[in-house]
Amino acid sequence: MNVKVCIINIGNELLLGRTVNTNLSWLGMQLTELGLPVTKSVTIPDDPHDIKSTLTQEWHDNEIVVITGGLGPTNDDLTKKVLADFFGRELEFRDDVWMDVQEIFSRRNLVVPEINKSQAMVPAGFTALRNTVGTAPGLYFNDNGKSVFALPGVPMEMKTLFTDYVISILRRNYICETILIKQLHTWNISESALAEKLKDLSIPEEINLAWLPQTGRVDLRVYGKNLAIIDRLKTEIKDLAAEWVWGEDNDTPQSVIHDLMISKKFTLSVAESCTGGLVQEMLTSLPGASKYFVGGIVAYSNDVKVNQLNVKKETLERCGAVSIETASEMASGIKAVFCSDIGISITGIAGPEGGSTEKPVGTVCFGLSDGSGLTNQKIVFNCNRDSIRFKAAEFIILLLINHVRSRA
Amino acid sequence: MNVKVCIINIGNELLLGRTVNTNLSWLGMQLTELGLPVTKSVTIPDDPHDIKSTLTQEWHDNEIVVITGGLGPTNDDLTKKVLADFFGRELEFRDDVWMDVQEIFSRRNLVVPEINKSQAMVPAGFTALRNTVGTAPGLYFNDNGKSVFALPGVPMEMKTLFTDYVISILRRNYICETILIKQLHTWNISESALAEKLKDLSIPEEINLAWLPQTGRVDLRVYGKNLAIIDRLKTEIKDLAAEWVWGEDNDTPQSVIHDLMISKKFTLSVAESCTGGLVQEMLTSLPGASKYFVGGIVAYSNDVKVNQLNVKKETLERCGAVSIETASEMASGIKAVFCSDIGISITGIAGPEGGSTEKPVGTVCFGLSDGSGLTNQKIVFNCNRDSIRFKAAEFIILLLINHVRSRA
Repeated sequence: MNVKVCIINIGNELLLGRTVNTNLSWLGMQLTELGLPVTKSVTIPDDPHDIKSTLTQEWHDNEIVVITGGLGPTNDDLTKKVLADFFGRELEFRDDVWMDVQEIFSRRNLVVPEINKSQAMVPAGFTALRNTVGTAPGLYFNDNGKSVFALPGVPMEMKTLFTDYVISILRRNYICETILIKQLHTWNISESALAEKLKDLSIPEEINLAWLPQTGRVDLRVYGKNLAIIDRLKTEIKDLAAEWVWGEDNDTPQSVIHDLMISKKFTLSVAESCTGGLVQEMLTSLPGASKYFVGGIVAYSNDVKVNQLNVKKETLERCGAVSIETASEMASGIKAVFCSDIGISITGIAGPEGGSTEKPVGTVCFGLSDGSGLTNQKIVFNCNRDSIRFKAAEFIILLLINHVRSRA
Repeated sequence: MNVKVCIINIGNELLLGRTVNTNLSWLGMQLTELGLPVTKSVTIPDDPHDIKSTLTQEWHDNEIVVITGGLGPTNDDLTKKVLADFFGRELEFRDDVWMDVQEIFSRRNLVVPEINKSQAMVPAGFTALRNTVGTAPGLYFNDNGKSVFALPGVPMEMKTLFTDYVISILRRNYICETILIKQLHTWNISESALAEKLKDLSIPEEINLAWLPQTGRVDLRVYGKNLAIIDRLKTEIKDLAAEWVWGEDNDTPQSVIHDLMISKKFTLSVAESCTGGLVQEMLTSLPGASKYFVGGIVAYSNDVKVNQLNVKKETLERCGAVSIETASEMASGIKAVFCSDIGISITGIAGPEGGSTEKPVGTVCFGLSDGSGLTNQKIVFNCNRDSIRFKAAEFIILLLINHVRSRA
């Protein structure tokens, strides 16, 4: 039987939307790797009634409950009182914890405010987990094989206590079988079309296949406990969807093209209009991009297209700035001016203004020029400005990956 | 009595920790602004039993339930079946929804896979919320004053449906006492130094002041229900911190410079090295940027700095690529070559490699050239590659805001 694991995150700021709950994803990753994947997570306000009712429910339903938040000295921090009350324990003053708190303050050359004495109160029978990076200790209690942990909400303190204590306690108390995760990244195919291609795939009971539609592409995640079966399934998917798979596991479009360009010793320059620098920003997000990326031009105005990229005025007048023809001349132009092996280009209408019946908002033209010729493509993206720009930038990088892979 | 609002996020990936739940914080913010703050959030796996038991509990406890995830065509998408089952409704095939799905595919020049027919199935009596940015419609059902919404998990689709439909439905069905939020954005001052400046401020009981340290700057948020008091407090803060306030409310560095450049009728060009296109990407994220932004060059290699920006070889040899001198010549160079009123430049060491004792990683030089002269600055940012790039890009924009404001 699988162990049921619930995370309870306490904090008004998480529900008000001020703070993104990164504690959950971090704990989720850690517990998955421990072989104790989280089965439920609940986020509630700093309210004793909510904490009590949630604890009652989740302590009943789960074997492991990890609570974050509500442990500090200010009066919105209520976790400890509710825990003591729920398990029918008195709060005891613990000298060893008080010494820890005093030491933390003295290291910072501060006088300990009286309010912090409450941090040395621990429910009877609970283990206090020493906090070396903050003043609130964590708590641990085991009852009939069930475990509850209470950790501070500050991410650094939570992570330190989890790493220092919780992992070893869980390893000692539960049989942990690590969950393995493999990924495949696809493009140029919709989730449903990909599902059609994979419909005859037989997925063993103990393996999970998750579909993760990203903006403009689909990622597949295969996970479970048996590496051999996961690898076999991954290979089967790769064979069935070979045409659309561009990367695996932690690959990103920019990391794949980065390695590819460096290994093939090609240099690259970029001319972009509607993406306004985004393609180059993505490429240079990886250290070492200077090994293949020479530079580029953001040709926002037509003057720049003509003066810097040598796009013909006649082409702009005849075909418009957003056209296969202009994209082609931009790609050849940047390649020539920046003396690189490959030049790529994007010109499009990111909107919300500037569309027409013939060329609606979302129309983007791509160009790719290398020694041997020109590749072009025109796509109409159906989304808002930000997404059009992002999808277009990813698209030209994926197009480049495809192109470079196909070259000797 | 306060309306109880529960968000249910469905998705293994959220519990496995691969995906950070940004949907919750976005919805939390939206619902808070609507005056219907979230009172609980539950995250569960793609499992029909979990979905059913959570729905049973939360539909009982809350007036409004918003579900995200589990609406796509693949077989891990189960929300719709569970909803139909829970409310005792048949799934009906809806021609209008099917036409929407077909249209989305035809716009992308794709054949609709059979599997997508399931997306046109809607529980009887439910309202289908038309999805213009994806193929899965949202769902809405009202029963005795209680409302349930089911939205796709893909953030862009979820946000579009929430904005297009959910807000107006909630406004119609519930009395929303809006929480008012006003913001002030500061730069060039630390959180604690700013706190010193504001230490004599008296904050009324019913008003909250939140400190939000951002990457490289501090935002202040004043919120509550009484607009007059909020505005008075905001004005007091603005007076005390006038020197460091660069914007208000939804202002971003790029939106402030956008309006400023257009109103002053200046044109701008950009030469960037270590930021690799990020500055230009930020400026062009706003529609209409072409009214002032001419274009720019990403001068990643020294050849590009010399050949395209007319930086002197001698300057590069004597002072190095990362120097006030090179930044100055890049700014004058881009201004001249692109014929703009103002030219700005960034050159720096984003790391992790390339630092030295004299010029450690994080060293960034900025240049600004206009008709009347040159402004320079050198800063050493103490953070990682991504943050160095981001802080540097924001810094040059904030520097430009300051400069343009000071000009007649």
